[in-house]
Amino acid sequence: MESSTDALTAHRDRAQQDYAELVTRRLSLDLTRGKPAANQLDLSAPLLALPGDTYKAAEGLDTRNYGGLHGLRELREIFSGPLQVPVEQLVAAGNSSLELMHDSLVHALLSVLPGATSRWVDEERIAFLCPVPGYDRHFGVCERLGIEMIPVPMTDEGPDMETVERLVAEDASVKGVWCVPKYSNPDGISYSDETVTRLAAMPTAAPDFRIFWDNAYAVHHLTDERVEIADLLAACADHGNPDRAFVFGSTSKITFAGSGVGFFGASPANVTWLLGNMAKRTIGPDKINQLRHALFLKDEAGVYAHMDLHRAELRPKFDAVLRILEAELGGTGLATWTDPKGGYFITLKVLDGCAREVVRRAAEAGIVLTPAGATHPHGQDPDDAVIRIAPSFPAPDELEKAIAGVTACVRLVGYEKLLAAK
Amino acid sequence: MESSTDALTAHRDRAQQDYAELVTRRLSLDLTRGKPAANQLDLSAPLLALPGDTYKAAEGLDTRNYGGLHGLRELREIFSGPLQVPVEQLVAAGNSSLELMHDSLVHALLSVLPGATSRWVDEERIAFLCPVPGYDRHFGVCERLGIEMIPVPMTDEGPDMETVERLVAEDASVKGVWCVPKYSNPDGISYSDETVTRLAAMPTAAPDFRIFWDNAYAVHHLTDERVEIADLLAACADHGNPDRAFVFGSTSKITFAGSGVGFFGASPANVTWLLGNMAKRTIGPDKINQLRHALFLKDEAGVYAHMDLHRAELRPKFDAVLRILEAELGGTGLATWTDPKGGYFITLKVLDGCAREVVRRAAEAGIVLTPAGATHPHGQDPDDAVIRIAPSFPAPDELEKAIAGVTACVRLVGYEKLLAAK
Repeated sequence: MESSTDALTAHRDRAQQDYAELVTRRLSLDLTRGKPAANQLDLSAPLLALPGDTYKAAEGLDTRNYGGLHGLRELREIFSGPLQVPVEQLVAAGNSSLELMHDSLVHALLSVLPGATSRWVDEERIAFLCPVPGYDRHFGVCERLGIEMIPVPMTDEGPDMETVERLVAEDASVKGVWCVPKYSNPDGISYSDETVTRLAAMPTAAPDFRIFWDNAYAVHHLTDERVEIADLLAACADHGNPDRAFVFGSTSKITFAGSGVGFFGASPANVTWLLGNMAKRTIGPDKINQLRHALFLKDEAGVYAHMDLHRAELRPKFDAVLRILEAELGGTGLATWTDPKGGYFITLKVLDGCAREVVRRAAEAGIVLTPAGATHPHGQDPDDAVIRIAPSFPAPDELEKAIAGVTACVRLVGYEKLLAAK
Repeated sequence: MESSTDALTAHRDRAQQDYAELVTRRLSLDLTRGKPAANQLDLSAPLLALPGDTYKAAEGLDTRNYGGLHGLRELREIFSGPLQVPVEQLVAAGNSSLELMHDSLVHALLSVLPGATSRWVDEERIAFLCPVPGYDRHFGVCERLGIEMIPVPMTDEGPDMETVERLVAEDASVKGVWCVPKYSNPDGISYSDETVTRLAAMPTAAPDFRIFWDNAYAVHHLTDERVEIADLLAACADHGNPDRAFVFGSTSKITFAGSGVGFFGASPANVTWLLGNMAKRTIGPDKINQLRHALFLKDEAGVYAHMDLHRAELRPKFDAVLRILEAELGGTGLATWTDPKGGYFITLKVLDGCAREVVRRAAEAGIVLTPAGATHPHGQDPDDAVIRIAPSFPAPDELEKAIAGVTACVRLVGYEKLLAAK
């Protein structure tokens, strides 16, 4: 969109007024993290008093005592379908999937993976492909563990597969790729069947290449369309690469964010490898919490019914954000944004070079956003354009105030930028 | 004790008869692990329905959501005294202390420790001192992570300090020592004040030397004498080595073995280091379980009162073992054993070269013991003499049957050995 300097100046002046007014309101709002709201946590209130007077699992196991490294079978049965992992190949562990991803990398560094010729720590260089924009905690684990990150652009169907295929084929130090295959963080993209097939089938120079398949939003739908993705684990086996996939999931955004259950799924060889390493670290997971979850969720249908309740809480918040973005920024040419079918985020893409300044201005007005750049390795978004919005946690009225404030910042920074370029 | 060949033959023949009879009884008894019995777990039954209808911690924190990496303050306050760690320096984490020990080693390998000049994984050799007999899971972690183990003999006051001091002074690759300072596993030894002072004060060639202080049995008394040990963390600070101590503890043998809370305590610099690493691995521990524990145990006095109930369950089992050992083996010269003031184990020391054979014979009679040698690195007891007995888990009548059976094996193997030496 081309505007005259006069028109831009008028827009900028109005944005300045709006921003000045915003600052006087002394807000204190937080849009940083994809945290469930208290209302959502209330949906799982019965968990607080479970298991109540029982402690026996279906197999007769005393859940109170040590042991049971693989995790409670009845809970694994419930999540086998949603996570697309056969029950025997699914491990139920502690209270987060992030720790399973972290530990899988640690174990690969310090203990030889199936298919590997040495511990990763004994190799000169270990690199992971990082589709961008992506999830900052994936990047944080790599950074901490000394794993190099290679950004790969996202498309509407997942990571750009031509780039992925080229990089993994030519470089044996490329050992893995991070994927959030459904309702991706932050763009809300779901991987196409073709993407999944190509990931499963592609030749890799590294014999111990792994796809870290963080299926964090497997059942976190926001529309009537429950998006289905292809079964990576089966596809890998079909294409002769059975050990390629590490599947992760959790109930963190299903039940209680801090007190859920994390899952790991993979080939039998990988599961044996993980359990062998886990056995040195722990005598077993918190099986009472797993029993608590099995009793509460009951079965796979119970999970879906429960997620409908979450959707009822989340959908109005996403709608409010989209409505305000459209009302305040629609037609300005200053921003685009996603309308995700699930997951926890809306990506707001502002003019190149403006994201940091928008976040800075918002912070000055009391609205804390995820740092610009967090969606990229080392916090470096080369276009400085991506802002991740997490609508879930604030109360509806606070959310609306915060988003309206953000749009004022986008207008201010955007028009200043356009004027400066004149 | 000297016996004539005839007398030994008679003893051996009687032992053979007893053993033959034992085998015909087709027992299936397990004395392998220090697991609480169901009766002991029943003592914590209220936990199964807690926190009930609340989820707010004393600080107003919503325990259901993400965050709170340091762990719930009210639970840390309860265990600060028993673990001898200031509240601010105590971290409450997941369901085991073993995983905190494992992860502390992992983080030291992959992330530079306070006082260290490099990651341990970048050093040529990393070794830990292992007082023997000791805890097999400590050794298992070292083995898995490629950490060399150097056995050091135990005395009645802790590890032989002359050996420890010499080894740590001369060799910078000696990075740590494993200690179970109170009611040690398996000997039931508590470290003397002098041992603690010398550990805290000794010069070490490694600037990043750590004492892994596994205070697993801090409140696990079996007599009226509640043994107190010196405060290692304070002693290290007093002697100018504030970062030397890593203190570990858990509620695994206080509440539920599989669903307790693990603790880590250390200097502020170490705590900052651990939390920095933990933050890449998890967004926070299961705070609901921590709240559950705080509500159930209430305060430090509540812990002690609860442990008295455990003692009432455990004491008769230990007494039964001691009674049978004395009745069957007393005066034979075939074995000695410990009479611990706390903890979970009785060490049975048989004639050199006999432990494996006793364990094998017992297994053939349906009595499973911890593998002989498990008390030593790589499962190698050079004297082949130590057998660890875990009296807690079996029901009293089964325990008595099992111990009587073990004594028959000790007599059989011992007299055979003595006869063969004639």
